Order: sequence, then C-alpha cells, then structure tokens
Amino acid sequence: MAVVKEVLEIAEKIKNMEIRGAGKIARSAAYALQLQAEKSKATNVDEFWKEMKQAAKILFETRPTAVSLPNALRYVMHRGKIAYSSGADLEQLRFVIINAAKEFIHNSEKALERIGEFGAKRIEDGDVIMTHCHSKAAISVMKTAWEQGKDIKVIVTETRPKWQGKITAKELASYGIPVIYVVDSAARHYMKMTDKVVMGADSITVNGAVINKIGTALIALTAKEHRVWTMIAAETYKFHPETMLGQLVEIEMRDPTEVIPEDELKTWPKNIEVWNPAFDVTPPEYVDVIITERGIIPPYAAIDILREEFGWALKYTEPWED
Amino acid sequence: MAVVKEVLEIAEKIKNMEIRGAGKIARSAAYALQLQAEKSKATNVDEFWKEMKQAAKILFETRPTAVSLPNALRYVMHRGKIAYSSGADLEQLRFVIINAAKEFIHNSEKALERIGEFGAKRIEDGDVIMTHCHSKAAISVMKTAWEQGKDIKVIVTETRPKWQGKITAKELASYGIPVIYVVDSAARHYMKMTDKVVMGADSITVNGAVINKIGTALIALTAKEHRVWTMIAAETYKFHPETMLGQLVEIEMRDPTEVIPEDELKTWPKNIEVWNPAFDVTPPEYVDVIITERGIIPPYAAIDILREEFGWALKYTEPWED
Ligand SMILES: Nc1ncnc2c1ncn2[C@@H]1O[C@H](COP(=O)(O)O)[C@@H](O)[C@H]1O
Ligand SMILES: Nc1ncnc2c1ncn2[C@@H]1O[C@H](COP(=O)(O)O)[C@@H](O)[C@H]1O
Repeated sequence: MAVVKEVLEIAEKIKNMEIRGAGKIARSAAYALQLQAEKSKATNVDEFWKEMKQAAKILFETRPTAVSLPNALRYVMHRGKIAYSSGADLEQLRFVIINAAKEFIHNSEKALERIGEFGAKRIEDGDVIMTHCHSKAAISVMKTAWEQGKDIKVIVTETRPKWQGKITAKELASYGIPVIYVVDSAARHYMKMTDKVVMGADSITVNGAVINKIGTALIALTAKEHRVWTMIAAETYKFHPETMLGQLVEIEMRDPTEVIPEDELKTWPKNIEVWNPAFDVTPPEYVDVIITERGIIPPYAAIDILREEFGWALKYTEPWED
Repeated sequence: MAVVKEVLEIAEKIKNMEIRGAGKIARSAAYALQLQAEKSKATNVDEFWKEMKQAAKILFETRPTAVSLPNALRYVMHRGKIAYSSGADLEQLRFVIINAAKEFIHNSEKALERIGEFGAKRIEDGDVIMTHCHSKAAISVMKTAWEQGKDIKVIVTETRPKWQGKITAKELASYGIPVIYVVDSAARHYMKMTDKVVMGADSITVNGAVINKIGTALIALTAKEHRVWTMIAAETYKFHPETMLGQLVEIEMRDPTEVIPEDELKTWPKNIEVWNPAFDVTPPEYVDVIITERGIIPPYAAIDILREEFGWALKYTEPWED
C-alpha cells in the first residue's frame, strides 16, 4: 500500500473521535488528501491516482454515516477525477489535488464567517430570534448581527435530551447578547414575540428537507403558522449528495440513557420503551431560506448546490471507486 | 359571623394545600357548602342565604386563580340563588343547597369514569395514542379502552420542566399498556405513527381554546398538520366562565429553578433569563373534540357547557355577591 503514513494517522484520529465536529473532520480529510498528493512517491499518473483513491477510501470508511467527511473527499477527488480523465500528467494532477484540498479548507474556514455576513443582512434592529440546539453557523448569524450594532434578543430552547441550549445560551451571553432560555415545549407560546427563527442543519437533502436536532421541525412548523421566517444556516458540505439518487437519510437512534439516566431507567417497568431519535426532518415548505457560504438560497435550490459542489449527479460512483 | 366551623376548616386546608388537585378541591368546596346548609342555625331564609354567601366567599378567596373551586361554588350557589329569588322558604332553600352540593360531588366523582367511557368509544383497536403531561381524564380514556380489550400503545412525552410524563408512563404501564417514552421535541417525528392524540386541560375558554401544560399547543398543531385527531378530556368544571365576559386566562409563570436547578442557575451569566410558563393556549381549530362527563362536544360548543352549567352568562355577579 502506497498510502502515506500521515493519511493513516488522520484516519485513525477521525475514527477514534480525537478529531470531531463536522467542520474539523471535513478539513482534516481534505488535508490528508493534500498530504497524500504532496508526499506520494508514485512515478506515473496512473499509480498516483490509484493511491489517491486508496487514501480517499480509507478516510471515507472511518465514519460511514457522516455527511461532511465524504463531501470533503468528493470535493477534492471529483476535481482530481476530471483532471485524470482529461489526460492530466502526474504533476498536473498533483497540482489539481493540492489546489482543490486547499480550496476546500479555505472555503470551509471562511464559511462560518460568510454565513454570518449573509445571514445578518436579514436580521433587523430589534429582532427577537428563536434558535434551537447549538449551531456554529446559526450563532455566526446572530453574533454578526449583534456586532453590527443590531439590538437583538435570542430565545434559546434547552434542547432535550442533551441540553445543547445551555451551550448556546452561554455562548450568546458571552458576546453580550440578551438571552431568554425556555423549555422546548415553549416554542409555540413564544413564537408570537419572535421575529425570525435561525437554526442550523445536520444535513440537507436534494429537495431542501432539513435534517437537524430533534425538535427543529416542530419549531419550523409553528414559525410557519405564525408567518415567522425560518432561516437555516448551513455550510455547503452539509448538503447530502446521496439523496440526489433517492437515498433516505438515516435518522440516528441514540441511547435511551441520554433521556433517562441508567440508574433510574433500570427501575422502570419493562413495558415502557424509551425512544431517542437524534434528528427530525423539516420539510422544505417550512424553510424560508438556507444561508450557505455561497449565498442565500431557497430550500428548493438545494439541488443547485449539490450539482455545483459535487457535480456527479446522474451516473453515480464515488470518485475513489472504479 | 355565622359560618360553621367545618367550612373554616375546609377553607384552611384548601388554602394551605392539604387539599389539592382540581377535582378534590372542587368536591371539598361543594361539601363545605353542604355542611353550612345542614348545620346552619339561621332562623329565617334571609339570614340563611346571607350565611351561605359568606361561606362561599370565604371558600372562593382561598385560591383566587383556580377554576374548579369557584365553579363548584357557582354550581351550588347558582341553584340556591334561583330558589331564593323565587321565594323559597328556609327549608326549601336548605334542601336545594344540600341537593345541589351532593349532585356536584356525585357528578364530579362519576366524571372521570364517564369521560373514560365516552372517550374510549373513539379509540380503535390497534391505535397508537400520543399524550402529554399527566391528566387523570386523559388516562381514564386510555385505561377504559385498554380494559375493553383494545390493543393500544401510548407515546408519552416527558413534559419538561416537571417530568409529569414519567408519572403518566408508569401509571399506564401499571395497567399493562405498552408505552413509548420520548422527549417533548419528538412529538412531530412520531406523529406519523400516531392515530389519536388524547390530552387533558387545565381550563377551557368560552370559544373552546384549551389552556393546558406548556407544549400542548405544539402537539395539537402538528396533529392537525397530520390529520390526527386531538381529543381533550376535561370535566365540565374546568370550563372557565369568566371568559364568557371577555376575561383572559392568566398564564401562570413559575419559578426558573424548575427549569434549571438553583445551584446551577446561580452560576449563569446575568443576561440569560429563564422563563417558565406553566401553560399554553391551544386554539379551538386544532381541537377535534372535548370529552366531558356530559358527552363529547366540538370545542366551539364550550359556550353551551358554560351556559348550561353556570347559567349566569350575561349579567354577571358571583352568586355570593350582592
Ligand atoms: N429520512 C429522510 N431522508 C431524506 N429525506 C427525507 C427523509 N424523511 C423525510 N424526507 C423529506 O422530508 C420531507 C418530508 O417531510 P414530512 O412531510 O415532514 O415527512 C419530504 O420532502 C421528504 O422527501
Ligand atoms: N390568555 C388567554 N385567555 C383566554 N383565551 C385565550 C388566551 N390566549 C389565547 N386565547 C384564545 O386562544 C385562541 C388563540 O390562539 P392562538 O392563535 O394560538 O393565540 C383564541 O381563540 C383566543 O381567543
């Protein structure tokens, strides 16, 4: 195997979750491909491309259900594949790969900032914003608006079962933003005083459905009922290319002990089951816009993002497969 | 003061919450009026009626924001007032009061059973039911259906911040009913597998809006979205007569430490406020039917219940006032 040791090291760290968080995983994977291209000892373009595909496959298999990780790989490898297919020589292909990896990392690092800028334009002075869970992209929008001098207030839902609302509330408060913290069930009660809803996404399907923390769909639904805009802040690598080919996103079921502590759960009657879905699906008709680092799009344009970013819509093989 | 000591004792117990729970408070108040009528030493009908009004006022003032308590008083005193106004003599009026109190107590005791019977007719074999919080009336519907041999399953939401879902889950499980326990945010995610929603009510307004545990309105909203029936199980003494005269129901704001424990809350930045509303308001258009002990009604018929039960709609003074 001619995969360089740096790739194996990064793959190991992604696997054992030393490297975590959608953005960091994606950038590390792109960087691993860059290192593979830089350090490869291959003597011809065919050998070089074969190594690249091996490296990409190893990285891909570390977290088979993630979205950001394969998307980073696709970003780089898709560009490599085009160059290779059009007859690039070794040094040309190496350059394409390195360049694509750097581009991905740069875009990804700038993405949160750009999402903040684009999203903040839609936040008005005096707005009351509701958010759910902890989303760096959503926070970037609110933080940017606040730094622009817009006097906002944020209603943060606690986000059972894992209380990510606490992290969000404290982070926003640390920037000076006034926060109102409520239980998830209070979303409709306070929607009347809400001007905008800003939430993140775990992934986005081809038709603009938003997979995000359980409870997101309920909030978007009542926002729609109130004619309050729901804005989803999401980097383009959250868009889920397999959904273009019909694949359903798997909704991760997590451990019941996140809902009821193990000691307590042991004492419960056997005919109570605790179900703990991590995500729900918000249909596109409840989403006003998706704020990406490329710009603001209607959810129905998710397909445009997917085609532009990944470009291998119709005849689908992963660029690291034959 | 010619109010008998038993009335004062019951009033004290309601005040200090030795007597608690909407049903029990209501029955105790009616019983106190019965005792007043039985033990009164009044020698003429005017004196007797004056004492009755004093007793009712004392009882009323123990918990000024409750709904069931004044409704019990009104049930008895309204009937007394009509008799008194039509020239009843002392013994006739005493009989009317005692009889009305017994009737109220009897109705109230039978109410849960009847709600169970009526509601269970709308539950079908194989139904998956979603419920929220802990409602004796809602449980009566599910328990009765189960005892009729209908194979049901109940999705119970945990009901933050006070976890009443745990009580409901365990109670249902103790009857043998299979329970699925989820966080409140999962209501929409599991609405697709739900056949009926059955919830209780804290109070019901003249136009059929349902005041109930925070989160009820979100569940009813998504049930509507899914064409799943929302059935509200509520004794008639939960109907809120003052709303006939325009009064808004006050939504009780409870202590933030129910949401975040005091020790933790102390460490939070000062620009995070925790808001803890106990109830929300579900508009009548999201409610399919209200199951009362008198029968099943559309929410828009709340006014009929109010007029029949309390009968003093348009020119309003409490029957214990002059
Ligand atoms: N597991 C899933 N994977 C991908 N898309 C989904 C999934 N579940 C629902 N959707 C999409 O989300 C929307 C369904 O929303 P809903 O009507 O709320 O079920 C539709 O656009 C579906 O295509
Ligand atoms: N505090 C309140 N007291 C009485 N009725 C209310 C209250 N709040 C809302 N409503 C009623 O509930 C419905 C409003 O539902 P919504 O559109 O959800 O606010 C209307 O029928 C109002 O008349």
